[in-house]
Amino acid sequence: MPNNRAATAPSITPVDVPRGLSGVVVTDTALGDVRGREGFYHYRQYSAVELAQTRGFEDVWHLLVHGELPDAARGAAFAARTAALRGLPDEVRAALPAIAAATGPSGPLAGLRTALSLLGASLGFRPVYDIDVDRRRADTLAACAAVPTLLTALYRLGRGLEPVEPRDDLPYAANYLYMLTGSEPDPARARAVEQYLISTIDHGFNASTFTARVIASTGADVAACLVGAVGALSGPLHGGAPSRALDTLDAIGTSDRIDSWIRERVLAGDRIMGFGHAVYRTEDPRSRMLRGIAQQFGGSLVAFAVEVEHRVEAILAELKPGRELHTNVEFYAGVVMELCGLPREMFTPTFAAARVVGWSANILEQAEDPKIIRPAARYVGPVPPVAVPVAG
Amino acid sequence: MPNNRAATAPSITPVDVPRGLSGVVVTDTALGDVRGREGFYHYRQYSAVELAQTRGFEDVWHLLVHGELPDAARGAAFAARTAALRGLPDEVRAALPAIAAATGPSGPLAGLRTALSLLGASLGFRPVYDIDVDRRRADTLAACAAVPTLLTALYRLGRGLEPVEPRDDLPYAANYLYMLTGSEPDPARARAVEQYLISTIDHGFNASTFTARVIASTGADVAACLVGAVGALSGPLHGGAPSRALDTLDAIGTSDRIDSWIRERVLAGDRIMGFGHAVYRTEDPRSRMLRGIAQQFGGSLVAFAVEVEHRVEAILAELKPGRELHTNVEFYAGVVMELCGLPREMFTPTFAAARVVGWSANILEQAEDPKIIRPAARYVGPVPPVAVPVAG
Repeated sequence: MPNNRAATAPSITPVDVPRGLSGVVVTDTALGDVRGREGFYHYRQYSAVELAQTRGFEDVWHLLVHGELPDAARGAAFAARTAALRGLPDEVRAALPAIAAATGPSGPLAGLRTALSLLGASLGFRPVYDIDVDRRRADTLAACAAVPTLLTALYRLGRGLEPVEPRDDLPYAANYLYMLTGSEPDPARARAVEQYLISTIDHGFNASTFTARVIASTGADVAACLVGAVGALSGPLHGGAPSRALDTLDAIGTSDRIDSWIRERVLAGDRIMGFGHAVYRTEDPRSRMLRGIAQQFGGSLVAFAVEVEHRVEAILAELKPGRELHTNVEFYAGVVMELCGLPREMFTPTFAAARVVGWSANILEQAEDPKIIRPAARYVGPVPPVAVPVAG
Repeated sequence: MPNNRAATAPSITPVDVPRGLSGVVVTDTALGDVRGREGFYHYRQYSAVELAQTRGFEDVWHLLVHGELPDAARGAAFAARTAALRGLPDEVRAALPAIAAATGPSGPLAGLRTALSLLGASLGFRPVYDIDVDRRRADTLAACAAVPTLLTALYRLGRGLEPVEPRDDLPYAANYLYMLTGSEPDPARARAVEQYLISTIDHGFNASTFTARVIASTGADVAACLVGAVGALSGPLHGGAPSRALDTLDAIGTSDRIDSWIRERVLAGDRIMGFGHAVYRTEDPRSRMLRGIAQQFGGSLVAFAVEVEHRVEAILAELKPGRELHTNVEFYAGVVMELCGLPREMFTPTFAAARVVGWSANILEQAEDPKIIRPAARYVGPVPPVAVPVAG
């Protein structure tokens, strides 16, 4: 903040904007967007859902951080490069038991926040403005590649299990499931998780993404930015919790109880977890895709989820006419992760294992435009200066 | 983000604002303000400089987080309460050697970032929207009280020294110096550092403060907010570095070299570290106060600093007429910390040990207004959807 350039600081005329900066355009981006009225979102020029349906996680990761989808040779090289970054430095590994032991009530994102902060320090990340774009990108790759290793190691240590070393012969999603369970996942489940992860990499200018960009705008290192973003994601108003929608299904229990349970909640003004979204006025495109994936697995949970979805939509249409309330990404994401054997407390961390790639792309884009994000506040307290009363 | 209330989301008409949100009023605050044209800043209704000159750190801390200066009894109780929070949980203490070992090139703020994240998890901090204001405030007090303990332990461990346990019979600043060196500081030095710390608790709506508030707006826990703020402070465009101004004094070396050294830098368009500020158009009031403190100590470093200050101002007035370039807080803060025996790499961490109180007050204020801060971005890439090319 203190610097000579400051002498050319712009006007300080206050600008009033909507509360929470809603709709305030903070930056240009080439990374993607959400078209809420159309039920469409995209990464660069491609439909995110189409990418999830046709590509692997590493290809889409490459698209976000390099700006283009790789050809076969580049894709293989990128996958090999990132797979080689999955192992942890000894000093980080040594600290994980203490981090796991400390991370009880604050939850697994507090563990990730701590471990990722340590990893960045251990790898010697430097301020983004002090290094070139290749080094910045390399720092983001190292951080992202290690996130599944950190998450699964902390999860297992918290349950008295030894961490499972990463394998570099498995794709990102399959290796994540492998490190979590110690067994190689079946291809259908690995692919379902991969599609979920791809669909979750980025989604407009949410609060964690904005946090990452504010921190990057100061020139701080990649770990500082990511750790702040993990913190924002852990907020109940942001990260949501795909497990909550499953908890709702559990609470309803059986088909005959759906209507009474839902009506009671809606009439009491309660939210129904897994329904409604800040931006979409149509069905959430992620929800549609994830329902399709769930239905490929079939079974009683999926049938029940579809039944609940239909009844909730019908009841909401009746009791709250004119409001478009559909399932959001939480609803079928929870179902898919349950089908793939992920424990519920790992649902939000799994989300983080995808979103870290989106944050990284945003950090890299922000670092190309070295201008600090520093808004203003309006003082509304008693008029100063009041003389300081004598102590005691 | 996904929730039913979303259905009442406001208009999404984009609002264009100045780059970097400069001058954009994000929130109301009763915590304080900076009046750049008057060279004045305040905490609540009191001059910050007057508070630094007449009160102890704990009293001003109480003012920020409780809203009023304490009377003698309350001040003593608050000091005792916070002093009792200086010790670390065993699991945090156990992890510090690994954190210190990992924190080389990324610097001491990366260590603080990690240790504070771990501390919050260890103390079971919970989302700010899930707890009441007393519990939130208690979490901020626990975090702030432990910051000097964490910083000094990491510093000593990094040099092969055992950490020094905190004492609860010393004020915040004196205990900080005590833990750093292992010896009780002389009263003049402890008071000088205390006055520096008070003057640095808060200063308008800077990027780290904004970061803390964005994260708090999601409802995340106090540690998530503070860790993000530490990350932002570590950015070269934000935190500055009081040691840089001292490095400048070292580089000039002797009185006879001042003019040639300064003229060369100014004519080359280089910044002179320690001069100029984004907001002040007059002398920085912190600089004036710190110069006074330094002059009470006297000695050759202080005399040389004053001489350099006069010559730089004269040369800048000659070469850059019309631009008001005075010393900023970095210049005499560095001199004062050097006189008080703080090692240069602890200058910015010492700044953080004060600012954490200001961040905390901002987090508490933000948590009273549960509205997520979520701005927008404008997509400027190729128009989607472009069909995803077939892999390989």
